[in-house]
Amino acid sequence: MNADITISLDAMGGDHGPEVVVHAALMTLKRHPGLKLILVGDETVLQQTLTKLNADVSKFLTIHHASQVVGMDEKPSSALRTKKDSSMRVAINLVKEGIAQAIVSAGNTGALMATARFVLKTLPGVDRPAICTTLPTVSGHTYVLDLGANVDSSAEHLFEFAVMGAELASAVEDKKSPTVGLLNIGEEEVKGNEQVKDAARLLAASNLNYIGYVEGDGIYLGHADVVVCDGFVGNVMLKSSEGVAKMISQFIKKEFKRNILTMLSGLIALPILRAFKKRFDPREYNGASLVGLQGIVIKSHGGADAVAFSNAINEAVLEIEKNVPARIRQQLENILVKERLV
Amino acid sequence: MNADITISLDAMGGDHGPEVVVHAALMTLKRHPGLKLILVGDETVLQQTLTKLNADVSKFLTIHHASQVVGMDEKPSSALRTKKDSSMRVAINLVKEGIAQAIVSAGNTGALMATARFVLKTLPGVDRPAICTTLPTVSGHTYVLDLGANVDSSAEHLFEFAVMGAELASAVEDKKSPTVGLLNIGEEEVKGNEQVKDAARLLAASNLNYIGYVEGDGIYLGHADVVVCDGFVGNVMLKSSEGVAKMISQFIKKEFKRNILTMLSGLIALPILRAFKKRFDPREYNGASLVGLQGIVIKSHGGADAVAFSNAINEAVLEIEKNVPARIRQQLENILVKERLV
Repeated sequence: MNADITISLDAMGGDHGPEVVVHAALMTLKRHPGLKLILVGDETVLQQTLTKLNADVSKFLTIHHASQVVGMDEKPSSALRTKKDSSMRVAINLVKEGIAQAIVSAGNTGALMATARFVLKTLPGVDRPAICTTLPTVSGHTYVLDLGANVDSSAEHLFEFAVMGAELASAVEDKKSPTVGLLNIGEEEVKGNEQVKDAARLLAASNLNYIGYVEGDGIYLGHADVVVCDGFVGNVMLKSSEGVAKMISQFIKKEFKRNILTMLSGLIALPILRAFKKRFDPREYNGASLVGLQGIVIKSHGGADAVAFSNAINEAVLEIEKNVPARIRQQLENILVKERLV
Repeated sequence: MNADITISLDAMGGDHGPEVVVHAALMTLKRHPGLKLILVGDETVLQQTLTKLNADVSKFLTIHHASQVVGMDEKPSSALRTKKDSSMRVAINLVKEGIAQAIVSAGNTGALMATARFVLKTLPGVDRPAICTTLPTVSGHTYVLDLGANVDSSAEHLFEFAVMGAELASAVEDKKSPTVGLLNIGEEEVKGNEQVKDAARLLAASNLNYIGYVEGDGIYLGHADVVVCDGFVGNVMLKSSEGVAKMISQFIKKEFKRNILTMLSGLIALPILRAFKKRFDPREYNGASLVGLQGIVIKSHGGADAVAFSNAINEAVLEIEKNVPARIRQQLENILVKERLV
């Protein structure tokens, strides 16, 4: 099934370095027979890591040398200028050259976006690529974008995000016309800033399945399949949601450890706590898409472990199979043509 | 202790109407002997509600008639123009006239802010009043503002919010120099939008205890005593946090109901679930302050029950006792004088 799929991995990116990426690659190959993965990074280090994990290169797992690494706090402009042989850049180059169909990186988000944009270019009509991920809801999950690639997004940018997010959701979920909501601070017409109000008009006039404003809690209550917002707002929303979940989980752990009785009840409640963890484990939701580029670029969480990174590779497999960039390109062309005709 | 304190209550505001407010008033009077509360609204309805709750007016609980009610979705401009005898407006007038020292309302937030601003006026030097509330953290709680009064806040507005929030926290918590963080999408200098970067420079040069950027999760991890942001961002943050908490709580409830074994473990885990509820119950955190006005205005959640509304009245009592508006006025004057000298 995955016989013709090759994915390049930035094996040096992320907080935990190559061991996580190599381990994730080995895990993923077991899940997808026929899939080919390219580990991009320091050849010696990667070979050593493989050996340490009792594995070796094969037809399905190769090493592509790159001598540099982009720092997690490095400025995107500096990475672009001075790190032309970084694992990140070389992995992206492999997509540009058609050797791989997608690249996955747990590295510096800003540098990944800047480099991918520079090397792969944006799709025709896209002014600003965006970061899109799924978040769990009471009834399933929802696609949210932008999560931090853009600040000060205009109404036109928000509209672009909506087109791209809806197409991504439609492709990956096999859903014909996903509902699209615009994140706002109230559901009434009069609320919000000018960008959001103008974007609402553009969306209402489009052929997207636009359902109106969604408030912050509406994301998790599943009010729309796709929720669109500026990257500053989306990033704060995402991180604060993570903060709440972490706080609650710390609290529950502490309470269960309070005394022998609570420890006992914790033991009995274990299946529930496990189900909870599985349902809301950020690792399950790892793998954000950089949409709007001429190629598939998946961003893994910097702190991802092997399970999480493997999920990000899965997301890449899925987007290759569903031909996501071509679908977004087609949809953008349809809309641009329609706009020009109007 | 509360012998000289009088608070006016917008008894007709909120999703649940006068019964919640009257019930909350009766609860609060038991907690604060000597406190005087004025129920503002339709005299007949309020008298009936008192009778229904086996209570009556007294020296401590009086009714002040107002013939109109501001709708929960009514435009602030319409409320200002056409609802001059609304329970909200009349309750605010009582503060203006010095009859009450604070007003509490669960009504329409936009109308409350617009009316309070029109009637009470802002403190000298305040361009935009803000909405501030406390949120729970792993180690206590944190003050966050603005939560939705202002969109498109400039660097100067963010600076103003910081001054007001820090003074509120300092007064209410008896904390000399609370730490102040600026909400951003990364902790590095290069990240964020221009308003936030400029505000960071203003804060770094001020006498506030500014500790730098805080990310969304930092709010709940207790990274700063006061977190400052634009109202659009703050409102989305608050609502999405509520959404996550609701989703998690729904999930846990459902899991515990799955079968007889999980129901049993839920029964045993009951004290923990109760502790969880108590710790994160939004009712405990009810009562946001409209800071920057010449008077104390407390906004209760529209859907508040009597316990929650009573907590909002408590917040009003506390701010009266701590003389919050006078302290904010003094602090603003200090800073304005300092700025002019520089």
